[in-house]
Amino acid sequence: MKQIGVGLLGFGTVGAGVVEGLQRNRALLASRLGVDVVLRRIGDVDLERDRGVTVDRAIMTSNAREVIADPDVDIVVELIGGSGIARELVKTALDAGKPVVTANKKLLAEHGDEIFGLAEARGVDIYFGASVGGGIPIIRVLREGLVGNAVRRIHGILNGTCNYILTRMEGEGLPFDSVLAEAQRAGYAEANPALDIDGHDTAHKAAILASLAHGFQVPLQDVAVEGIRGLDGMDVRFARELGYRIKLLAVIVRDGQEVEVRVHPTLVPQGHMLASVSGVFNAIMVRGDMTGDTLYYGRGAGREPTASTVIGDIADIARNLRARQARHRRAVQPVSDEPVRMRPLAEVQSACYLRLMVKDQAGSLGRFTSILGANDVSIAAVLQKPGGPAGGGFVPVVALTHRAREACLDAALAEIQASGVVSETPVRLRLLEE
Amino acid sequence: MKQIGVGLLGFGTVGAGVVEGLQRNRALLASRLGVDVVLRRIGDVDLERDRGVTVDRAIMTSNAREVIADPDVDIVVELIGGSGIARELVKTALDAGKPVVTANKKLLAEHGDEIFGLAEARGVDIYFGASVGGGIPIIRVLREGLVGNAVRRIHGILNGTCNYILTRMEGEGLPFDSVLAEAQRAGYAEANPALDIDGHDTAHKAAILASLAHGFQVPLQDVAVEGIRGLDGMDVRFARELGYRIKLLAVIVRDGQEVEVRVHPTLVPQGHMLASVSGVFNAIMVRGDMTGDTLYYGRGAGREPTASTVIGDIADIARNLRARQARHRRAVQPVSDEPVRMRPLAEVQSACYLRLMVKDQAGSLGRFTSILGANDVSIAAVLQKPGGPAGGGFVPVVALTHRAREACLDAALAEIQASGVVSETPVRLRLLEE
Repeated sequence: MKQIGVGLLGFGTVGAGVVEGLQRNRALLASRLGVDVVLRRIGDVDLERDRGVTVDRAIMTSNAREVIADPDVDIVVELIGGSGIARELVKTALDAGKPVVTANKKLLAEHGDEIFGLAEARGVDIYFGASVGGGIPIIRVLREGLVGNAVRRIHGILNGTCNYILTRMEGEGLPFDSVLAEAQRAGYAEANPALDIDGHDTAHKAAILASLAHGFQVPLQDVAVEGIRGLDGMDVRFARELGYRIKLLAVIVRDGQEVEVRVHPTLVPQGHMLASVSGVFNAIMVRGDMTGDTLYYGRGAGREPTASTVIGDIADIARNLRARQARHRRAVQPVSDEPVRMRPLAEVQSACYLRLMVKDQAGSLGRFTSILGANDVSIAAVLQKPGGPAGGGFVPVVALTHRAREACLDAALAEIQASGVVSETPVRLRLLEE
Repeated sequence: MKQIGVGLLGFGTVGAGVVEGLQRNRALLASRLGVDVVLRRIGDVDLERDRGVTVDRAIMTSNAREVIADPDVDIVVELIGGSGIARELVKTALDAGKPVVTANKKLLAEHGDEIFGLAEARGVDIYFGASVGGGIPIIRVLREGLVGNAVRRIHGILNGTCNYILTRMEGEGLPFDSVLAEAQRAGYAEANPALDIDGHDTAHKAAILASLAHGFQVPLQDVAVEGIRGLDGMDVRFARELGYRIKLLAVIVRDGQEVEVRVHPTLVPQGHMLASVSGVFNAIMVRGDMTGDTLYYGRGAGREPTASTVIGDIADIARNLRARQARHRRAVQPVSDEPVRMRPLAEVQSACYLRLMVKDQAGSLGRFTSILGANDVSIAAVLQKPGGPAGGGFVPVVALTHRAREACLDAALAEIQASGVVSETPVRLRLLEE
């Protein structure tokens, strides 16, 4: 199988996630892509720190240019961040004709014109899926899935720190300062939280999304930014009473030949999908002229989610490089030769909701619960509903069970029905298992 | 610019949407793809019916094989549906070496092995994004965005008819039969609703998602299916009291070398993202080993959403065909030469939440509202909150405004602050505009 070499610049949190993902899912990727993606070099100033992943010390170097120049490196992955040395290295890689994957939102929001222009001039691919939305493949969705749509509107919750703070302020009625302090202690907010809570991180991401959707580099200085610093708990409470939740949103609106890009705290109706996005999660709602509203939700940051998107970009380039030889993409790719078994329903385990119309007399309930117990079905909660529509001395009894095998539940329900304590076939619905 | 010819088989609802989309967004697509996608031929048994789109009568034929054989047709789009003639035509196209786009879930769920095997043998691409999820690019996400993940679990609301029925049963306490009858009158359910409400449509889609995620063709007969026919309103109510909503879910679980695929009504906790999916919308939650939970939401059916995904697939093939000449993909593609203006914040219009600490004396409120009115800001609702934390005779007043220009609001708030009726800077938050 053809090998594709990856050179990694920046061995921090996300970099370690990429290394781990490429190692753990190497066979899976090879089966899906038809090429073997191999980590060849890592460049970082710190060669000693333990990142929790095992790499051959010989592939590490403190000289990033060595990584780019290595003839076995086909793809350069930039995870240094910022617009200093990262900018120079990305330009060096593109100049050398090597495709680049980057998660660097600041670089693209501030210098996108330069970077994309250089890639264009050199005829080299640059992928930046992880620059917005972490583990949510929103960049790919905009570039590909929704490519047939004129984008009317984008609403994004793009900063997990802010969303975490807002969720706790609303849920627990806590003031901003104490939630921020606690988020800092828990590692959800930086010691210097300004980039997040003042909205600049969201603004960088909004500029990238707007540029993609509307086909021109949106200048950062034209993005109006208001963060959540100092948001008063009283307003979170009043908004809630009015039927809203407050979210820090990136808002991108297209109106004829005008585009608005802004970031500010926004009241979202409680029934809206964006209002359900809690804690550190991100979500982006995109309204296309053909699709209508679509929404993409997931973890907007973190080692493995962000690495997942970086690897998705690496995979795309690897597929392209492979395509120079054979460009066909298989629809359903077998992952290994080891056979996979379809598990029959009888072996599936679920927690269940049971509703039985039980004879309204002493002992009925005990009979019902003992039959469940005898069949290895244990009960989490029982509600005996008063009244109900049944006549003739039968009352509804609702039970939630713990996880049990379908076969056990089938046997228990058959036995209950045969016992004569219920008036009709018991209702059995399964609970979502998370 | 290079032209890529599309041949359409099946000029029904979605077919008409594809024609309209390709016409309306032709320039947009050309700018994004670097090729001009042109509709060349349409094959349908009915050459006369008005589909609400204008096409040259000369490109229409009742002979589908003519469409496939046309040398100007580079991509064949199959929107006939079912596994009869559609199966033969897809095979004919692949045999002729023409890439195929299809939305045909039944064909792929029942004969995926044959169809994908033929595409593989001929080295031709087959795309099927619109077979699951309508306007949600879930197939692309699984094949590309999450390609670096082992997929642990998929939970999908994949049938809009069922979700509409369940939403109305819960929201309005209506019985199944009357909601179904009404959905049929409104066109949300078929005259023969069995395919939807008995879960078979969801099962077809679940089989396709499971096949993609796990790399082998999942046999339809191994998918356990239970629909929502006859679901009792009492159980919807009891579930709600217990903190759940009932949804018809496709559940796909990977556990070592075993896979479960099942479809059944499922209790979903009210705070869960899937519980917020209302009406005809679909959503798919995918748990990858790297991303954790991600969710994709949108319209799961309908002319334009489904056509959007079909066009996304056409675009992918067109990019591939273009790539034989030049394979570089531009990151930010200018859409037209017409300049786009960044709209400054002062010109943006928003509805707002205002909270002012107002002097607790006669006339204060009137002063406040008349200043807003004089600045063209009209009020939708005012709440005078009793008490509040302010001392010194100031009470919180909350107002929701109608849409107003930022500049008008700025002026009004400045005037209010200067008037002396408020004790501190007014709080102004914007409402989400849908």
